Amino acid sequence: MLKKLLLYGLAGAGVFTVGILLGHYAIDKGEPSAPDWVQSVSRDVDETLIKRFIAEVDNIQIQENLRELTSVPHMATTAGDEKTVQYMLKRWRDPESGLDDAWREEYKVYLSFPDHKSPNKVTVVSPSDEVLFAAREKEKAYEPAQDHPDVVQPYAAYSPAGHPKGKLVYANQGKVSDYEYLSKTMNLTDTIAIVRYGGAGRAAKAINAAPFGVIGVLVYTDPLDINDGRMSDADETYPHSWYLPPSGVERGSFNTDFGDLLTPYLAAKEHTYRIPESDITGIPPIPTQPIGFEDAYFLICALGGQEAPANWQGAFNCSYNVGGPGFKTTSLFNSSDVKLDIYNKGELKNSSNVMGVIRGSVEPDRYIIYGNHRDSWVHGAIDPSSGTSVMLEITRVLGRMVKKGEWRPRRSIIFGSWGAEEFGLIGSAEYTEEYYSKLRDRTIAYINVDISVFANATLRVQGSPAAQSVVFTATKQVKTPGSDSTSVYDNWIRFFNRSSPSHGLVPNVAFLTGAGSDYAAFIHFLGITSMDIAYTYDRSKTKARIYPAYHTAYDTFDYSSKYIDPGFTSHQTVARTAGNVLLRLADSLLVPFNCSDYAESLEQYLKTALENFNNRLAEKGISMEPLKNAVEKFRTAATNLNLMIRDSALATETPLKVRRINDQLMLLERAFLDPLAFPEKFGFRHVIWASRSSSVPTFPGLADAYARAQESDLPQDWSQVHKHLSIVMQAVEGAAHTLEDVI
Amino acid sequence: MLKKLLLYGLAGAGVFTVGILLGHYAIDKGEPSAPDWVQSVSRDVDETLIKRFIAEVDNIQIQENLRELTSVPHMATTAGDEKTVQYMLKRWRDPESGLDDAWREEYKVYLSFPDHKSPNKVTVVSPSDEVLFAAREKEKAYEPAQDHPDVVQPYAAYSPAGHPKGKLVYANQGKVSDYEYLSKTMNLTDTIAIVRYGGAGRAAKAINAAPFGVIGVLVYTDPLDINDGRMSDADETYPHSWYLPPSGVERGSFNTDFGDLLTPYLAAKEHTYRIPESDITGIPPIPTQPIGFEDAYFLICALGGQEAPANWQGAFNCSYNVGGPGFKTTSLFNSSDVKLDIYNKGELKNSSNVMGVIRGSVEPDRYIIYGNHRDSWVHGAIDPSSGTSVMLEITRVLGRMVKKGEWRPRRSIIFGSWGAEEFGLIGSAEYTEEYYSKLRDRTIAYINVDISVFANATLRVQGSPAAQSVVFTATKQVKTPGSDSTSVYDNWIRFFNRSSPSHGLVPNVAFLTGAGSDYAAFIHFLGITSMDIAYTYDRSKTKARIYPAYHTAYDTFDYSSKYIDPGFTSHQTVARTAGNVLLRLADSLLVPFNCSDYAESLEQYLKTALENFNNRLAEKGISMEPLKNAVEKFRTAATNLNLMIRDSALATETPLKVRRINDQLMLLERAFLDPLAFPEKFGFRHVIWASRSSSVPTFPGLADAYARAQESDLPQDWSQVHKHLSIVMQAVEGAAHTLEDVI
Repeated sequence: MLKKLLLYGLAGAGVFTVGILLGHYAIDKGEPSAPDWVQSVSRDVDETLIKRFIAEVDNIQIQENLRELTSVPHMATTAGDEKTVQYMLKRWRDPESGLDDAWREEYKVYLSFPDHKSPNKVTVVSPSDEVLFAAREKEKAYEPAQDHPDVVQPYAAYSPAGHPKGKLVYANQGKVSDYEYLSKTMNLTDTIAIVRYGGAGRAAKAINAAPFGVIGVLVYTDPLDINDGRMSDADETYPHSWYLPPSGVERGSFNTDFGDLLTPYLAAKEHTYRIPESDITGIPPIPTQPIGFEDAYFLICALGGQEAPANWQGAFNCSYNVGGPGFKTTSLFNSSDVKLDIYNKGELKNSSNVMGVIRGSVEPDRYIIYGNHRDSWVHGAIDPSSGTSVMLEITRVLGRMVKKGEWRPRRSIIFGSWGAEEFGLIGSAEYTEEYYSKLRDRTIAYINVDISVFANATLRVQGSPAAQSVVFTATKQVKTPGSDSTSVYDNWIRFFNRSSPSHGLVPNVAFLTGAGSDYAAFIHFLGITSMDIAYTYDRSKTKARIYPAYHTAYDTFDYSSKYIDPGFTSHQTVARTAGNVLLRLADSLLVPFNCSDYAESLEQYLKTALENFNNRLAEKGISMEPLKNAVEKFRTAATNLNLMIRDSALATETPLKVRRINDQLMLLERAFLDPLAFPEKFGFRHVIWASRSSSVPTFPGLADAYARAQESDLPQDWSQVHKHLSIVMQAVEGAAHTLEDVI
Repeated sequence: MLKKLLLYGLAGAGVFTVGILLGHYAIDKGEPSAPDWVQSVSRDVDETLIKRFIAEVDNIQIQENLRELTSVPHMATTAGDEKTVQYMLKRWRDPESGLDDAWREEYKVYLSFPDHKSPNKVTVVSPSDEVLFAAREKEKAYEPAQDHPDVVQPYAAYSPAGHPKGKLVYANQGKVSDYEYLSKTMNLTDTIAIVRYGGAGRAAKAINAAPFGVIGVLVYTDPLDINDGRMSDADETYPHSWYLPPSGVERGSFNTDFGDLLTPYLAAKEHTYRIPESDITGIPPIPTQPIGFEDAYFLICALGGQEAPANWQGAFNCSYNVGGPGFKTTSLFNSSDVKLDIYNKGELKNSSNVMGVIRGSVEPDRYIIYGNHRDSWVHGAIDPSSGTSVMLEITRVLGRMVKKGEWRPRRSIIFGSWGAEEFGLIGSAEYTEEYYSKLRDRTIAYINVDISVFANATLRVQGSPAAQSVVFTATKQVKTPGSDSTSVYDNWIRFFNRSSPSHGLVPNVAFLTGAGSDYAAFIHFLGITSMDIAYTYDRSKTKARIYPAYHTAYDTFDYSSKYIDPGFTSHQTVARTAGNVLLRLADSLLVPFNCSDYAESLEQYLKTALENFNNRLAEKGISMEPLKNAVEKFRTAATNLNLMIRDSALATETPLKVRRINDQLMLLERAFLDPLAFPEKFGFRHVIWASRSSSVPTFPGLADAYARAQESDLPQDWSQVHKHLSIVMQAVEGAAHTLEDVI
């Protein structure tokens, strides 16, 4: 506003001179005066506005958002979830700080719940069917929150119901190699496996087990992996620290694919075709149940057999034995079986996304999407409400500027409060399925802030290389929590860094190869430049797999405000950082992506691929030259585009030239999509960032095909390596074409 | 140019007034004078230029183009093909009438050729192995062209080599139902089938036969189907008329899928992964050979058994018998077998596309692509050089205007002279695979002119409904050959018309559902609004399946200039029409697509689907309401977009608003793509226009799934109907979202 007033003032003062000058030029060229829009189409990001945004982001507001959001458990599709839907709508429709528009979008999705009338049970049963031991059915309450009637019993979502009974075996992390190791010395048929979280995905622990004859799986969190060894709630764990109390249980979705499991690639509307439940893949084929380490301790320390290998041992003060199977003769449980009584059932439920928008002024048909899921397992103070409270603070500050008429972004901003993320990123995936074409063609970037603060040590960013530069710019402007001098960037680079051939030492933006949060559908399915932003741990201070209250009843406002981010200044820092990135993406005349940074990542992948595969492939008569050439072509195209941008006076160019370059930058990521590259992996179409099983950090299809061929040495498997080489070569070349001069 | 001079004149005359006015407004708004580009970005199509283009398109130039192009046979990858490559390059690089740039793009593709050292043979062999009859190995020469050493022996490309020998049976058109009919009364094992062209695709005739035990297939053109019954070259057929001489043989590619058969979805470059030849599907599993009706006459009229059904009878003056198998005892061939000696072999060959461009001035990153294939089977005067000579005349006229600096299109124009179309649309398909992302994101439309003149009666257009309006506009401006008053439109509507709910009686633009020419990859694989334009028959005058010299040695300059288009005025008309469409697409400020016309086509499909499927689906508990709602939503969105366009002063709006609407119109077609809708059909991703087996003219996936379910009545097949309903519903809704207000 200030700028505009100034302009008017100047115009007033200089009327006479300007009039003559303008008149002169106008006559000389025979052209009319500039239409209104000539200035607005070339307006760039306003640094004053960004400073103001940073100043206005308030930690106490975030704290109060969080208090409201976590007042009751809000698992997807429950009454608590609906309460948060209403709260989001109220906030986004607020006449003074709301958005242009807000609405809900409902999908009918397949979820899995325990039966609160028949709680799941884990018992030790003697040969005469006497119950010798029963695992806890709910977590111990240390504050009223844990006693809330809506706290869901710990369970493994999508585990089938069933009542397996058998000898217990300890199977480490439930990896294929763990079961293979065990099966060398024992028959796993009809056993129940108890495994630690970590090492393999939740569903994988049971999927890996079943082929060995295992009939049920218990999973628990070992104090070694989550509590830096701490076990006692007398003085060590919450409420005395952030560590997980003995009865704490990590809930979770035990599935492999993201999105609604019954409607792959189709938005789950009322009448949408659904596959039969029996056709679902990627979920446990055998009953599975998570338990706390308090109960796991009794079970594991009673196991017979031999001491397991050192890297199988956890933090319990006993030997983790393998062999048996079953309990040792000296234990109370001698000859007893472990029995699971699982009553989970699948249900079709209506889950809502809440959407909100600020309409763009100049290019409303270009979207920046900012998303966070809304549903939790219990109170979800950290997962996800730390992110929701940050999102609400960003929308409050921006909404006020919009409502006052002080600002409107160049491009449209869409906020997504996703539903049913915990069950498999369902809300965001269904959204991308329903609006595929529109989102694919118009979306500049997706910013995901799920858990905004895991811990208060440093920023952590995963994202497409194209987005690195805008994140760097933003983090240099935001200060670390409680500091007036240290930037987020300077702090970040101390914790995560790498040596970039072109930039020197820089913070390390991790690659976005997994499907850990709602960015998955955006980057992998839609090919939209995405990033995931959070504050996280000082790894020199803890080895916890994740913050200890994760997915338990202890993830509460109390826990967060005491042990994660007292004062909520890290939340504030994330809000400032993510909001700054958002503003730059929405307002910059030139889309702030650097395609040369993408070239650097491709070169890194190529180098790794050449080092690991080239010799063997040459033996097989498969040349890696075409891929090498493609990466070189990409580098050249990126360099040339950057030179062209540098040499253009974009602010005075025709807006269609700027749009053309912006389209090249926007669509670069899309060029890496190949819907047929990974037919067996749901939703993964991005040939650079798709998930990878091989440990070689390079092009995923190539790495995985190579690993298979190395193992089998079958000609058809080497052919698949060649095929994936061609697929990635074509994708990289296609991306290079996108960057090249337009014709 | 005229306009510009006028503008300057006016500006000069009105200096004083204009100056004051401009000064006034400029001062009042505090704005500078308009930049240079303000006018150019809003410039619309120039009707004067279109008139000039029409006037300059010259029939004699087209004639001379054709003479040059057809001087030698130019089958794909032969020396004659290379000669045409050089000619295209020379023309498009001509300093006075060439394009901005022209180049070749090479692919290494899998073709199939006979062995000229061991020509294919078809013989009748007695039980004592005496050759009683041998089919002609080459067509009879009536002019030197047919005697050219490069005339390829008639063959069935992609038929395997082999030497099957067996009793001959007449199998009508080689449809599944034809073989089923025969197998009711006889055992087809080890027989050779002789079939007519028509009714089933070339490859299908053999693919359908093999499961019945048939070991070889002969295919011929019955005079009933091609010659309106005429058979004698003494006075009836060429050189006395356009009818096919008795020895004429239709060559062709006997495959089902388009694009290079060894590199599905990958551009066939030197190092590209190739599937094993043994994995190719959709080609004849048994040796197949085409012959002329002169030879077929001897074979068919000698067959034993009973008279075949009436609709199996052709034009020969004998009974077409079925039964036997083999020849009748009264024939000279009694007890004899028919033997095929086929020596075809697959070869990897370099095939070239020749590309040429005129760079756009305002939106160079928007493409109009105009394509025609260059390769023929023999001289190809009609197929394809009638189209090539038209394309060259269009580029000559436009190239001159560009070289003189008189004109430059708003958008870029790309001309493609495709290679190896005859073998399966290979050049265009490989091009779309290599440049997928770029073409997908930037191409407004694809115009295909393959055979430009089948006959000189009327225009015939196949295309996307979105393109109907621009074709109507253009055809109203172009006159029919030899007329000063009748427009192409007025003539066209007499031959092909339909009653449109919104426009009344209009010429019928046929749907683009097949893969008959190079538009296939553009519409079906890339989802680009496409059209195919030609002049064609008066169906009241001939029942010929296609022009009789099709794919034979008689498709020469002599034939074309005498019997297809004496004076080349129909060629000229097609050049004027297609060029007019091209200019409108390239120069219009607003992309000239009418999305409401698309709504009309969807409503037509919906109506047909409801009439044919609704009752039965309701019985099965499958609702068609969601599809109905989706089509209604599309109609509403189209109406609203059209109202918005009508109410906008596009010439004075920000160019980004115009671009936004144009993007909506451009990307509408893309929204119908679903790469997983038809996994078994190579390259078909467009859920509205994909090929269809069912006879019900509606959404192809739905129609085919319904036909299968009706036949089997299996629950899983009804599920597939439901699935395809959801797929098409989601695609139509996605397209509606594309048309809706941008956010």
